[in-house]
Amino acid sequence: MDLAKSGIKILVPKSPIKSRTAVDTFQNESPEKLDPIEQGQDTVTPEVATEKPVGALLGPGAERARMGSRPRIHSLVPQAPGPVTAAMATGLAVNGKGTSPFMDALTASGTTNIQTSVTGVTAGKRKFIDDRRDQPFDKRLRFSVRQTESAYRYRDIVVRKQDGFTHILLSTKSSENNSLNPEVMKEVQSALNTAAADDSKLVLLSAVGSVFCCGLDFIYFIRRLTDDRKRESTKMAEAIRNFVNTFIQFKKPIIVAVNGPAIGLGASILPLCDVVWANEKAWFQTPYTTFGQSPDGCSTVMFPKIMGGASANEMLLSGRKLTAQEACGKGLVSQVFWPGTFTQEVMVRIKELASCNPVVLEESKALVRCNMKMELEQANERECEVLKKIWGSAQGMDSMLKYLQRKIDEF
Amino acid sequence: MDLAKSGIKILVPKSPIKSRTAVDTFQNESPEKLDPIEQGQDTVTPEVATEKPVGALLGPGAERARMGSRPRIHSLVPQAPGPVTAAMATGLAVNGKGTSPFMDALTASGTTNIQTSVTGVTAGKRKFIDDRRDQPFDKRLRFSVRQTESAYRYRDIVVRKQDGFTHILLSTKSSENNSLNPEVMKEVQSALNTAAADDSKLVLLSAVGSVFCCGLDFIYFIRRLTDDRKRESTKMAEAIRNFVNTFIQFKKPIIVAVNGPAIGLGASILPLCDVVWANEKAWFQTPYTTFGQSPDGCSTVMFPKIMGGASANEMLLSGRKLTAQEACGKGLVSQVFWPGTFTQEVMVRIKELASCNPVVLEESKALVRCNMKMELEQANERECEVLKKIWGSAQGMDSMLKYLQRKIDEF
Amino acid sequence: MDLAKSGIKILVPKSPIKSRTAVDTFQNESPEKLDPIEQGQDTVTPEVATEKPVGALLGPGAERARMGSRPRIHSLVPQAPGPVTAAMATGLAVNGKGTSPFMDALTASGTTNIQTSVTGVTAGKRKFIDDRRDQPFDKRLRFSVRQTESAYRYRDIVVRKQDGFTHILLSTKSSENNSLNPEVMKEVQSALNTAAADDSKLVLLSAVGSVFCCGLDFIYFIRRLTDDRKRESTKMAEAIRNFVNTFIQFKKPIIVAVNGPAIGLGASILPLCDVVWANEKAWFQTPYTTFGQSPDGCSTVMFPKIMGGASANEMLLSGRKLTAQEACGKGLVSQVFWPGTFTQEVMVRIKELASCNPVVLEESKALVRCNMKMELEQANERECEVLKKIWGSAQGMDSMLKYLQRKIDEF
Repeated sequence: MDLAKSGIKILVPKSPIKSRTAVDTFQNESPEKLDPIEQGQDTVTPEVATEKPVGALLGPGAERARMGSRPRIHSLVPQAPGPVTAAMATGLAVNGKGTSPFMDALTASGTTNIQTSVTGVTAGKRKFIDDRRDQPFDKRLRFSVRQTESAYRYRDIVVRKQDGFTHILLSTKSSENNSLNPEVMKEVQSALNTAAADDSKLVLLSAVGSVFCCGLDFIYFIRRLTDDRKRESTKMAEAIRNFVNTFIQFKKPIIVAVNGPAIGLGASILPLCDVVWANEKAWFQTPYTTFGQSPDGCSTVMFPKIMGGASANEMLLSGRKLTAQEACGKGLVSQVFWPGTFTQEVMVRIKELASCNPVVLEESKALVRCNMKMELEQANERECEVLKKIWGSAQGMDSMLKYLQRKIDEF
Repeated sequence: MDLAKSGIKILVPKSPIKSRTAVDTFQNESPEKLDPIEQGQDTVTPEVATEKPVGALLGPGAERARMGSRPRIHSLVPQAPGPVTAAMATGLAVNGKGTSPFMDALTASGTTNIQTSVTGVTAGKRKFIDDRRDQPFDKRLRFSVRQTESAYRYRDIVVRKQDGFTHILLSTKSSENNSLNPEVMKEVQSALNTAAADDSKLVLLSAVGSVFCCGLDFIYFIRRLTDDRKRESTKMAEAIRNFVNTFIQFKKPIIVAVNGPAIGLGASILPLCDVVWANEKAWFQTPYTTFGQSPDGCSTVMFPKIMGGASANEMLLSGRKLTAQEACGKGLVSQVFWPGTFTQEVMVRIKELASCNPVVLEESKALVRCNMKMELEQANERECEVLKKIWGSAQGMDSMLKYLQRKIDEF
Repeated sequence: MDLAKSGIKILVPKSPIKSRTAVDTFQNESPEKLDPIEQGQDTVTPEVATEKPVGALLGPGAERARMGSRPRIHSLVPQAPGPVTAAMATGLAVNGKGTSPFMDALTASGTTNIQTSVTGVTAGKRKFIDDRRDQPFDKRLRFSVRQTESAYRYRDIVVRKQDGFTHILLSTKSSENNSLNPEVMKEVQSALNTAAADDSKLVLLSAVGSVFCCGLDFIYFIRRLTDDRKRESTKMAEAIRNFVNTFIQFKKPIIVAVNGPAIGLGASILPLCDVVWANEKAWFQTPYTTFGQSPDGCSTVMFPKIMGGASANEMLLSGRKLTAQEACGKGLVSQVFWPGTFTQEVMVRIKELASCNPVVLEESKALVRCNMKMELEQANERECEVLKKIWGSAQGMDSMLKYLQRKIDEF
């Protein structure tokens, strides 16, 4: 199955193209002084800056007050409330028969994939992004070429081999908000495998833009599941299992720099990495039950180990959202840095680490992980089995669709 | 053995009858707007409000300063320093020979059980509760009838089957301060078994009044142990083992709303539940060594897992008392809410949870618990074996009596 | 091999002799009112007080800001930046040929061991401690005699059998800053074995002076390794294994009062003890990778259990330093007390604990530890195997020497 064909592509204000541009520029011009994370943030256009996830702007107090109310569903796609609705509302308007309107929405809405062609989402009643669509078109082509010229032939991630370490940045084109579909996962796995084999002492994992990773690419998964529930639920569970296993097996330290929201699988893989530094603006949420899914990424084992069952279950069952500081207090994050100096602080530490004896680094990680590995592999296996079961069942499908329906209704 | 016959009943300001009244009223009149927890607190009489446990009123700083002094024994029966002493002092006064005065106290003090008859504790030199004893008598009968009319035929707990969940509230009549004797435990087990079998998606556990649960019903246990140490220590350990096992085995999520002090077994079962929300006024203590007992409720396994050995041992060996905020910081509690909105905050979240796909809830809990279950069962087994051994030994008996003697001497 | 012969002894402002004096005085005069910890701090001379480790004086904010820069190597010997350099710089000055100057430094620098004779470090270009060296000489002899008069025939520790517990204080003469070489370790093991066999209900572990324990005695180990790498790396790993195993096997509660910096093995053994109370001035660091070593003391198992992998790895791989409050927040420390009342707070609690039923204490510890013991033994075994491998390799040796070279170069 080709992603380009099936991809329910809804454009968001934060254009991945622009981010990539920034990275390219940066790679050519100033490899030492600037950093892609910082750069990615700098290139965010003014109108995007005003569309930041609401939660990230609230202090812990305000956040707590807010959490008393409804499921925090809108935070799943924090940057793109407008466009998503546009497409969905269209579907509802076109169809309007009441039976599975979302599916029609998926079929009816004019969607596009950046890799293939540019199609308008003008079917939507609100015109959100049209003006922004036309103008960067030729630029896009130009950078696409420049991209293939470079050594890193990835579409959804940027990989930079640096002195002593490999820097992997999520910067997805085939999904919104760095969310994970099998294509993105495979690229990350491939980059990790390369870093495992070369002379990198460690891997730094981060993301371009203001979002770290929004978990599973829901649009992608729903689309597939409605095609052939049994077969696709197996394939999806398999993809997640392999992705998570790559992290479990990885022998060199993985350091994560969480630049923004980490949701679902984007949050649950963090404990499979070794050190987690977070931007003060980052937040963490695993609202699995809200969209009718069971936990993934070994979170059912690692979250209770890290923060105790009371907090782990509040996140896994009740979908509690943690600010960066809260996540640090609970042990999910090693340390929180201010946005202004985040990249700098991370880079200083990374370079220090990368100057260590690589045998010491690898042996130390092996000592820490050795009697967790089997437990994690089993947990991953179990979690994926349950996911397969839930996704493969009519009831599981229903609650996922109900969730999306609620989301549509909210607009 | 009948509880009514053996029960060393010492009345406390917080009348369980009044609380029960509140619950009944609430069930008949305003099932949506009010909640039994809130209600229970509202109906606390003014003079009770002034007898709150000292610790709960102190800020963390003041609390820390205070903890430097003596064993925090008085906090064991935080609401009833007066009445308990009344009965005990009576025993001492009557006997006064120096040999095991507490046992005489148990025998000599005029005690009563609400279920059977009302006897004065007027033999005590201080008249604490006399005025409060006489007046509610006929009311009690009336509500007793109303209670049997309802569907929930429990004496020490209130069970409310609600939309999607079962609400179990401790409201003990056969013990003080919601402390646990075999009768109370059996009722909780029975209610949990019912909730396991019906269509409840989860269980909410809380308590009527301003105390959550004061652990084992010490008066009850001491009385039995002095009768026949060998046999009764076995029976008691068995009762605790079954009670704790019910929590370990329970498949649906158990959410706890800790409204006030949680002591001993009342605190150690919390990690066997899934989410723990606490009122800011709640506090947590497991002063096992102080009264010559070893830890129970799988706390020897779960406390170190949750908060690390240093904090766990400080609680289990040194009896450190934690405020709600401290318990939250250490991971024993998921989140702390202000007293004024506690019930409201809990209820919003419970209803959200109860709207989830029950398969997802149960599978998620199973995933989190699966590789802990055997470890917990074994821990429970070991802990109960040690309790049996200590309770069954002359030395263990002695240190328990010494503790009670010290407590009596303190007045 | 005799320690006195090999010992690279560099005197530090905090004179162990003075501390010992304090302890002796205290033992003879006021066993109830004063405590060696408090005493040790009181007897610190004014000029020493101004030479406190820099980190301890910084607030968490200032500390964080500082951590962004270079490896925090100087904190390894926090109290003696001057003298250490004096000796090393001397070596460099004498040799100056560029090939392995540190080794020459080790050979060339005039060093001394308190037990044998008093030699000046006056070869150093800066005169740091000369004035302080001459005057306490005869006092030293006097107290040395008094020390042998007492029941506790240890050189590097002070052991005080008290009512219900044994108090072991690190006060090393054969190493700086209470750092651990095989001689010190053997004395601690011997004292623990005595306490295990006598009627002590528990052990209190602390240190004389303002430092708790600076981990492995680096000077000692480097010296040996350069003699015969293969044989000595095996011997050293063996010594550490036995030392750590003594803690794992110890059946009675071990309470630690951390009076000052706890570094490397001095920090990693803390989770093998039961309760850890810390002076507000204490800090914690395990900068293993910085000096080319892998973690020890079961820290690869216990640190992740206590604080989660993110924080554990930040300490173990990235060498993050924790203030006492941070260590408490992460669960490494049970509670933090103000310097002024630290000893008093600890002693009140110790006496309370020592009044408990010893069977309850030992059974409670056994319950908490029982299913960790084997895991810890295996972790200890693994860690020591890796240490042996790293120390025994040319590369491992190199990175240790590079670390020391960097340290020398920094001055």
